[in-house]
Amino acid sequence: MKEAIKVGLIGLGTVGCGVYKVLTEQSELIRKRLGIPLIVSRIADIDVDRIRPVRVPREIITTDAARIIDDPEIDIVIELMGGFEPAKTFILDAIDRGKQVVTANKALLATYGDVIFKTAEAGCVDIGFEASVGGTIPVIKTIKECLVANNIRSLYGIMNGTCNYILSRMTDGGEDFQTVLKDAQSLGFAESDPTYDIEAIDTAHKLAICLSLAYGTRVKLDDIYRQGISFISQSDIEFARELGYTIKLLAIAIDRGGAVEARIHPTMIPFDHLLSSVGSNFNAFHFVGDSAGSVFLYGQGAGMMPTASAVVSDIVDIGRDLASGIAKRVPLRSYQEREIRDISLLPIDDIVTNYYFRFSAVDRPGVLSKISGVLGLNNISIASVIQKGRRLEGAVPVVMTTHKAREKDVRQALQEIDRLDIVLDKTIIIRIEDEELI
Amino acid sequence: MKEAIKVGLIGLGTVGCGVYKVLTEQSELIRKRLGIPLIVSRIADIDVDRIRPVRVPREIITTDAARIIDDPEIDIVIELMGGFEPAKTFILDAIDRGKQVVTANKALLATYGDVIFKTAEAGCVDIGFEASVGGTIPVIKTIKECLVANNIRSLYGIMNGTCNYILSRMTDGGEDFQTVLKDAQSLGFAESDPTYDIEAIDTAHKLAICLSLAYGTRVKLDDIYRQGISFISQSDIEFARELGYTIKLLAIAIDRGGAVEARIHPTMIPFDHLLSSVGSNFNAFHFVGDSAGSVFLYGQGAGMMPTASAVVSDIVDIGRDLASGIAKRVPLRSYQEREIRDISLLPIDDIVTNYYFRFSAVDRPGVLSKISGVLGLNNISIASVIQKGRRLEGAVPVVMTTHKAREKDVRQALQEIDRLDIVLDKTIIIRIEDEELI
Repeated sequence: MKEAIKVGLIGLGTVGCGVYKVLTEQSELIRKRLGIPLIVSRIADIDVDRIRPVRVPREIITTDAARIIDDPEIDIVIELMGGFEPAKTFILDAIDRGKQVVTANKALLATYGDVIFKTAEAGCVDIGFEASVGGTIPVIKTIKECLVANNIRSLYGIMNGTCNYILSRMTDGGEDFQTVLKDAQSLGFAESDPTYDIEAIDTAHKLAICLSLAYGTRVKLDDIYRQGISFISQSDIEFARELGYTIKLLAIAIDRGGAVEARIHPTMIPFDHLLSSVGSNFNAFHFVGDSAGSVFLYGQGAGMMPTASAVVSDIVDIGRDLASGIAKRVPLRSYQEREIRDISLLPIDDIVTNYYFRFSAVDRPGVLSKISGVLGLNNISIASVIQKGRRLEGAVPVVMTTHKAREKDVRQALQEIDRLDIVLDKTIIIRIEDEELI
Repeated sequence: MKEAIKVGLIGLGTVGCGVYKVLTEQSELIRKRLGIPLIVSRIADIDVDRIRPVRVPREIITTDAARIIDDPEIDIVIELMGGFEPAKTFILDAIDRGKQVVTANKALLATYGDVIFKTAEAGCVDIGFEASVGGTIPVIKTIKECLVANNIRSLYGIMNGTCNYILSRMTDGGEDFQTVLKDAQSLGFAESDPTYDIEAIDTAHKLAICLSLAYGTRVKLDDIYRQGISFISQSDIEFARELGYTIKLLAIAIDRGGAVEARIHPTMIPFDHLLSSVGSNFNAFHFVGDSAGSVFLYGQGAGMMPTASAVVSDIVDIGRDLASGIAKRVPLRSYQEREIRDISLLPIDDIVTNYYFRFSAVDRPGVLSKISGVLGLNNISIASVIQKGRRLEGAVPVVMTTHKAREKDVRQALQEIDRLDIVLDKTIIIRIEDEELI
């Protein structure tokens, strides 16, 4: 039996500091549960002298990651630097030296997961990545272990704290997107360049990882339909409320038998659904398994300590294997590597759901009839209409929701409608998830 | 490497049938993930010929559990008969034969856990019991593995589906306790003798298991304060609504430093808290870890397939260990057995929380002053008062909520108040969790 587990940390940023803090402050608790001590042997960071929220002994910090990767004493390499390179090279090198790996790098795994997992498989090395999706929420473990005997019928997730913070503030405070974004930036909830979050690229990385584990598949990021939140206006939030909905940026995966639907977009969901209650910068994941039924998980999707908590759970998990003299006990991608296959994601044109349209129409009799005429000709059946107070000049909003319609038909209809001379601006469409969202 | 994992099932009731269904219908999925087949070798039940929701080959059913326990071919014994005996003997015998064990028997583990876990520890045998708490919700794994490096600051749980169904119906439909209970019984959500559920005995078993894992401790069931839901009336539900609260039966554990507070009682919680949205017969668990922050889990706490899903996740977990040639990878009670200690639970007299009182007072001037006088003399400070329309004769309800008060003071004050001649009936008290419930 090993006498201790030694770890090396690459990247001493916010999460790295959190991990160091947990591993040192909770060393007694971890030893009581793991059975042997877990020791931070060395930390690599390009900036040795920066002032950090934790005190790290100067002598264990190095600027040279190779001093971790090549150290035969170190059992587990924890990559927390982020980005593609040199993180990818460091991870592949660590695998090559037979080291177990823990990472929170969702962009890397979503983009280069195939080569990393295959290399790890060949080297009989485990990769812990619980912190890559949903921060402190045990999403990866839930898919890989808890729902192991379930076909995942669907997953609806709020996977990006920045977007949820912005949409929640817009909903609760009546403020517009730009105002809230600026506030979020000054509070540290959004980056100075917010593209990665608000255009749902971050969410796509996380959904890709979930999909690959849930269905034992390789996922091409570009096959996931993705729409950001910057077009959402306060009037859409208010119409949603009137219709009984809340707008959330949802990542959606639905098993349609032969294919899996995977899409990310602002979504109207019923006001009384648990996902509607997910406020501030929290994340949530709503799985439906064919045996388990609904399983809903909620928590902090980011932040120093919540993310560190997940990283350390991975370290202890791998530490338990090492203490037992085994490795890679649970398949890396949830299915045995030989079972990993490519599945097709349903093209966005083929999805069928409910829609909200906000038309900018001239205020003139006959408008409703013209618009609904085009919708009807495209097999789109209207569920409700809201037409508010008249204006003397300019556009008035005409809001409609639909029964189930095919996206392709919707796009065709809107192309025709937006060309009508009674329509003054591009129509806003927001998808609605209602009946299927149990 | 083992070529297959063989399991024997003792107890072919509702959950047993569900487990058989998952293991056979999902055998391909399980093999793709576990790597080797998982085979049901034999099933024991006292009733061989009963008509069941699944078709089980007659030749694998026996009335003799020993044919499972003594079979050297069987790796894992799954106990799903429930009750204390002979379940306890069967489990101890199975451990004695070196078999791994999976059980959903919360009453047994809460009552005889100490001897069962110690015996398993000595025999180097694992016991899976994910299904014993929260059905399909991965509560046990979350405490033992995901929050492994966290001190659990608090746990607030809705752990009994029957009580939640009754309280939700009373809240949504305005019906009274007895009416809803009868309905729940006819729908199969409540037993014909509902004591075990509505007096919170079932919840106490589950909280005891959570406490023992979260704090690495032995728990005496009788040390957990427990109050059922049968005294809750429609008028309390309505006053709660007026005050911005929902009434739920909560199991509460709070780490108070030297001692842990453990109590179960109907509780008023803020209307906009996630726990308030847990409707019907669902369960939910809200953990606060010192690193992880809030982690909220929700799902079906009972039922054939949800419970089976959790049982099978345990079987696969243990199967992975067996396939790797190891056993008991995670400590049975979450802490290494040598670290298990007794901790003291805070006596109910010493808890400090907010209270709701509904006094049945005569309708006469000066009542409020008399009642608030007694409260004041007992260090109880009033936060709000509701005094509704006058009646010509009989009692009128006077409702008060308090700031933080000590239970001992509350009991003393109510003893005095209930003796006043202006008070016509025993005062109803319901504890409120508000500020601390983040």
